[in-house]
Amino acid sequence: MTSNKGFYTIRWLDEGVSMLDQRLLPEKEVYNVYDNYQGVAEAIRSMVIRGAPAIGVAAAMGAALSAEAIRTSSYDEFSAQMQVAFEALASTRPTAVNLFWAIERMRGLLSELEGGEIDDIRAALVAEALAIYAEDIEINRKMGNFGASLLNDGDTVLTHCNAGALATAGYGTALGVIRAAFESGKRISVLADETRPFLQGARLTAWELHKDGIPVTVITDNMAGSIMAKGEIQKIVVGADRIAANGDVANKIGTFSVAVLAWRHDIPFYVAAPLSTIDLSLSDGTMIPIEERSADEVTHIGDRRIVPDGVPVRNPAFDVTPNSLVTAIITEKGIAKAPYSKSLSRLFGD
Amino acid sequence: MTSNKGFYTIRWLDEGVSMLDQRLLPEKEVYNVYDNYQGVAEAIRSMVIRGAPAIGVAAAMGAALSAEAIRTSSYDEFSAQMQVAFEALASTRPTAVNLFWAIERMRGLLSELEGGEIDDIRAALVAEALAIYAEDIEINRKMGNFGASLLNDGDTVLTHCNAGALATAGYGTALGVIRAAFESGKRISVLADETRPFLQGARLTAWELHKDGIPVTVITDNMAGSIMAKGEIQKIVVGADRIAANGDVANKIGTFSVAVLAWRHDIPFYVAAPLSTIDLSLSDGTMIPIEERSADEVTHIGDRRIVPDGVPVRNPAFDVTPNSLVTAIITEKGIAKAPYSKSLSRLFGD
Repeated sequence: MTSNKGFYTIRWLDEGVSMLDQRLLPEKEVYNVYDNYQGVAEAIRSMVIRGAPAIGVAAAMGAALSAEAIRTSSYDEFSAQMQVAFEALASTRPTAVNLFWAIERMRGLLSELEGGEIDDIRAALVAEALAIYAEDIEINRKMGNFGASLLNDGDTVLTHCNAGALATAGYGTALGVIRAAFESGKRISVLADETRPFLQGARLTAWELHKDGIPVTVITDNMAGSIMAKGEIQKIVVGADRIAANGDVANKIGTFSVAVLAWRHDIPFYVAAPLSTIDLSLSDGTMIPIEERSADEVTHIGDRRIVPDGVPVRNPAFDVTPNSLVTAIITEKGIAKAPYSKSLSRLFGD
Repeated sequence: MTSNKGFYTIRWLDEGVSMLDQRLLPEKEVYNVYDNYQGVAEAIRSMVIRGAPAIGVAAAMGAALSAEAIRTSSYDEFSAQMQVAFEALASTRPTAVNLFWAIERMRGLLSELEGGEIDDIRAALVAEALAIYAEDIEINRKMGNFGASLLNDGDTVLTHCNAGALATAGYGTALGVIRAAFESGKRISVLADETRPFLQGARLTAWELHKDGIPVTVITDNMAGSIMAKGEIQKIVVGADRIAANGDVANKIGTFSVAVLAWRHDIPFYVAAPLSTIDLSLSDGTMIPIEERSADEVTHIGDRRIVPDGVPVRNPAFDVTPNSLVTAIITEKGIAKAPYSKSLSRLFGD
């Protein structure tokens, strides 16, 4: 169903929500199964699963697990307990808006169904989570088809972090665009920034593209600039964790630097993201909350300490790329260009 | 003699050349002693010691070890065996010109002394290596004094890689500038790029500044841009491995990206390097040979594989920053500004 070869990111099983533990890739391919929403919340927080669309799907499935577990025939009691689960799931990570979008969708359905049979509400919430999952794959396919037109035969495409099958229910946003171009017969090569500190590019993007037979080479984040200067990169495609109404893009730390380097070298810089990533309630990127993660992600790699004891580090998980550096935003409804305040709201209006 | 607290980078001892093994920092502080030039060559190649000025000093000491070991009373035989050592030391790393500068200085002295007693030549070569060592510290102090004037009280200074005591005979080039400003009473804070793949910033710069009590915070390379965008960085100071006659600067991979980001944010970008790093024989940076190092520096961190098996990586150790992005070059003879083709050659003329 995910169309990926031999793996899946997240799946709803009889015994619970199964997720590929992305912290262990590429060395180990282990699936964890969570049978309660608390487990799902912890999986999101600890980055067993990550990527804005994927954590939206995970949160919806976590809410569905909660719905299945609540034993009451009172709507008020059921709803009150669901709110606890929604809050727990919403408090896991602050930046990716898809998380809140998915929770709001589940919450909205719950409140629509007020007065119904609890068994029916439970079933409807599970069905909604599964719909969010299935729609995400469909949305990625559409985004891929729109975006593929922007890539040419022979292009080397740089991507940052992982906006792939592993960041979504399947197929991917930025990597979906690359997959669609590749599947259409264009010879595309990918350069993957390793993406410190969590190494999503080296560990995840390389892993999933290699499985698909799409040529991928890993570089450290600090190599991208000089490779651009040599003329060896034709396009850049990245995902997003939240896009403000004016087109400012919050994405994995380092995306802003890539965008500045692309601008210096006149290389198109594309962002691929579903409408659920666009937050029209925020007028610009300065309003997007940026998660600070724990120091040990920077001070240690595996068991190895790489920063001397006693030396502080910083660890913002995301940065904001101003709209002026974004060539286009690829969505499932089409490709938006500047001025984004108009083009993005138009996509929602269709 | 190095004025650093409780450690030294390289030292000439009765039993051989002693070097702090920089591959093991910050976890372990281990000194290796080499009693032959082949050991010194391998130490340079494998980055037990690194940093352009430091590997110049190491090569000179390696040549001195060779001089001590050659048992002959024939100048021709002595010289022929010395050439073998010079070649071996010169073939260790291609980019940092200080290596070739130091070897040429030793070779020049050897040929000046043709016809002399071998015992005297041996002693002169050892004395020359020790002079190169002592001069390097003196040069760093002078550079520090010139450069300190460019930093203001309260500045947060970003540096990339390690251009410190550990990259020189002692005190440092870029970090020498920072040390001198700090010692003069200016409150300076340092942001150290971790500097993938070898992590010289996280492991070495943080370690030596922390020992000196200079406030230092480590960031991943990809964070620098967004921290600049927030206005939190006032100056950038880096070292260099080779500077062409026109002021193009080869330095650790990622330096170019930092320079582009500095330019975008109107932040002064300074390079601190001794005259021995300036190669007037190369008209511009495109002529500087850039070392490609082995893949496993990128694919593994310690024992941990971070790139999937079968996925290629790139590992250029250096990049070239065009002179247009360099605000000034700080040397032991003064501060050069554009046009560098004039200002740099003038420094040599003094």
